[in-house]
Amino acid sequence: MTLIADLTDLLGPAHVLTGADMDRHAQDWTGKYPGQPVAVVRPGDTGEVSACLRLAARHGVAVVPVSGNTGLVGGTYTQGGLLIALERMNRIRDLNPVTRIATVEAGVILSALHDAAADQGLYFPLWFGARGSAMIGGVLSTNAGGSNVLRYGSTRALCLGLEVVLADGRVLNLMSSLHKDNSGYALRDLFIGAEGTLGIITAAVMKLVPAPRAYATATLALRNLADASVLLNRLQEASGGLVEAFEFMPASYMRRLAGVRPDLGLPFAEVPEVTILTELGATAPALCDAGEDGSVPLSGLLEVTVAALMEEGLILDAIVAQSEAQRRAMWARREAAAEITFARRPFVDTDIAVPLDRAAEFLAAIHTRLQAIDQAHEAMVVAHMGDGNLHFTAFPVDGSEATYDRVITMIEDVVAELRGSFSAEHGVGLSKLSSMARRKDAVALDVMRAIKAALDPEGRMNPGKVIPTESTP
Amino acid sequence: MTLIADLTDLLGPAHVLTGADMDRHAQDWTGKYPGQPVAVVRPGDTGEVSACLRLAARHGVAVVPVSGNTGLVGGTYTQGGLLIALERMNRIRDLNPVTRIATVEAGVILSALHDAAADQGLYFPLWFGARGSAMIGGVLSTNAGGSNVLRYGSTRALCLGLEVVLADGRVLNLMSSLHKDNSGYALRDLFIGAEGTLGIITAAVMKLVPAPRAYATATLALRNLADASVLLNRLQEASGGLVEAFEFMPASYMRRLAGVRPDLGLPFAEVPEVTILTELGATAPALCDAGEDGSVPLSGLLEVTVAALMEEGLILDAIVAQSEAQRRAMWARREAAAEITFARRPFVDTDIAVPLDRAAEFLAAIHTRLQAIDQAHEAMVVAHMGDGNLHFTAFPVDGSEATYDRVITMIEDVVAELRGSFSAEHGVGLSKLSSMARRKDAVALDVMRAIKAALDPEGRMNPGKVIPTESTP
Repeated sequence: MTLIADLTDLLGPAHVLTGADMDRHAQDWTGKYPGQPVAVVRPGDTGEVSACLRLAARHGVAVVPVSGNTGLVGGTYTQGGLLIALERMNRIRDLNPVTRIATVEAGVILSALHDAAADQGLYFPLWFGARGSAMIGGVLSTNAGGSNVLRYGSTRALCLGLEVVLADGRVLNLMSSLHKDNSGYALRDLFIGAEGTLGIITAAVMKLVPAPRAYATATLALRNLADASVLLNRLQEASGGLVEAFEFMPASYMRRLAGVRPDLGLPFAEVPEVTILTELGATAPALCDAGEDGSVPLSGLLEVTVAALMEEGLILDAIVAQSEAQRRAMWARREAAAEITFARRPFVDTDIAVPLDRAAEFLAAIHTRLQAIDQAHEAMVVAHMGDGNLHFTAFPVDGSEATYDRVITMIEDVVAELRGSFSAEHGVGLSKLSSMARRKDAVALDVMRAIKAALDPEGRMNPGKVIPTESTP
Repeated sequence: MTLIADLTDLLGPAHVLTGADMDRHAQDWTGKYPGQPVAVVRPGDTGEVSACLRLAARHGVAVVPVSGNTGLVGGTYTQGGLLIALERMNRIRDLNPVTRIATVEAGVILSALHDAAADQGLYFPLWFGARGSAMIGGVLSTNAGGSNVLRYGSTRALCLGLEVVLADGRVLNLMSSLHKDNSGYALRDLFIGAEGTLGIITAAVMKLVPAPRAYATATLALRNLADASVLLNRLQEASGGLVEAFEFMPASYMRRLAGVRPDLGLPFAEVPEVTILTELGATAPALCDAGEDGSVPLSGLLEVTVAALMEEGLILDAIVAQSEAQRRAMWARREAAAEITFARRPFVDTDIAVPLDRAAEFLAAIHTRLQAIDQAHEAMVVAHMGDGNLHFTAFPVDGSEATYDRVITMIEDVVAELRGSFSAEHGVGLSKLSSMARRKDAVALDVMRAIKAALDPEGRMNPGKVIPTESTP
């Protein structure tokens, strides 16, 4: 029997897609990686995923997992491999409000988990633009970040337990809800962020946190990035570590926003050099319970702090959100980032991280060296500033591959000089493969290859992703 | 040349110990694992560690790292292997107060890092009894926990970068200070907690946090463990998540404390069923700056909360520390735990974790089943209750190996039924090896074995630890 016949026997014809039926899964939303899978299967539970992997093993076919397909690095691309879509495994198996833990399947949409947690006064503290379609399986496989990492950590920090189907179909059961477990190697952390190259994540136990009962959100105008670093420390100091987000939008970003999404408006009459979107979140009654005049102490705390820092001259101008609608409008400007980036082509986009005290240095160096490559280029950046994570985009005039390579190489040179990373939160997939080869420590690459070979000896798990075959000196 | 001659050539005779000179390193403080290394070497830098490993490889000799040697599971035991003592690598290479990061070598004593951080108003938030001799290398290799995990996480959560020497002497440089880095597999997390079986950790980049500027500490008398769970949630709610420690000392513990360390006193005239030591820590000026009457708002917050909960009947009696001396006296009672455990023999001590809502169930089941094994036994427990981590000790009348096995098997049965872990924070080493074989998911053991074989094909890195050779069905 052919693989497709075997799979159809296993799952029924409704869950084995071929031909044009695969279009929705075979290509991600960036459009940059049009794939051609042998089929797309939609198993309904872990046992079926396991059976699919055994069949793929028997037929010697590569396997690529896909969930929400909102990735940015081509991680779900395949030519001839079997795409395993986890979308039907979309149950929240359990949500315990006392222990603050959710047991979820890989196909649960991030915002569905947000909603279920909110029903219990809890929050799953991972927040990014694609939350309405991204699924937990992909979130885990890419160790996704977002706007709340500053306070709560990336996905890896939010996961207690994991279920993984290995290349040969065996199920690795690490579904623990323990906060401490030192019984052997950190396998959970290894599979998180492995982008499906070591196994397919089918379920997980995730930590929830008490939902902030009050938010205070502000858009602030600053003189420069050095002032932003001082500001973040000052806000943390004043609030006792309540900063949930600290997002950097320079003039280049705000001007482009005005062009692409004029409906969202600009916060200040004059576009400042540096715009910061910051948000505090609190749960303590002393900060959340409205006073007799209806005012929330957390907002008062932010207003007083901002006023003092304006007095000092650190903040040039400020708007503190006075309603949920104003808060949402502030976030909409930040979350338009992907739309703004992709609105103009050609572009060279990046997802880099530098040490917290070197972001200004990074931007200055990039500016100088881009000028040398292409005087007429434009550029834009938006950043999770509290994590040192910058999404820098260059728009060169020339769309040739040679220019792309020159620009990306130059950016990565600067990143390397500053001891940063060429991939902060989006992962490696296909698009950062040459960066891995050129930039990653050669010994680290060797160790990754050894682990990959040990767990996937036939090299059939999402082949060609994450680990380059040869490292470039 | 012999290995010892080669090592002496490399390091000089002062740093190659043999015979009785090895006593200090060859046996840990529990006295349970008297080893016989071929030699103890004390390399002074990463290059020398690498050279030692190359020599050991050439001579086909096993290698075991040792730093503070305060472990509890026999992790540094060796018969015939080479002990590599990291104690001379004791430099804090850098401590950046702005980015809140410390770059440390493996031989830095934990309390030395505490002191260096404190000089900058910062805190390295890992705190346990052995902090005056435990070193960072061992702390990382065992993914150490302690009393502050509830708020700040275990060691793995506090580490940004790592330097590891591999079995063949190559140096794996993961010395990043980035808060986000998704460039490939989580190698750092894999080596943390691997207890030297995959490589030797020589240096690390550790996160620091703002030092709490005020603490509020209390010893509380409660009716039972169920009330303790409610209390923790209530304290978190009232303080907005400022609980740094929540330690459980039942009557069995307090009575034994009174016997072994009468100098430390008992907090309450009558020993309550449940004694809780809890501590809040704050940095926000609004909670830390003393008022005109000299009172600290954080203490006031704790006092008001405790008073309200006494009124409710949840707390039976309470002492809120009024001075640093009183705070230290409260902690001394908790930190006498190891001393109390080892004061009576025979004992069966454990380091188990259960889901947060199942600790009472665990203790009740253990009590019943211990009675059935040995009616005259005594038992004691002390726990990091906020993490579900219990250190349960049985003192059976009979010191035979058979009784030990019956008791430990029974305890682990209960742990397994509750989906807990037989090793929460101490690691596996030698002493939990049979538990790994009996209790760990068979697929997980296979994956660990595959990784071990891939990174240490000759099986020379701390052999016989962590991973049992065969799993017991």
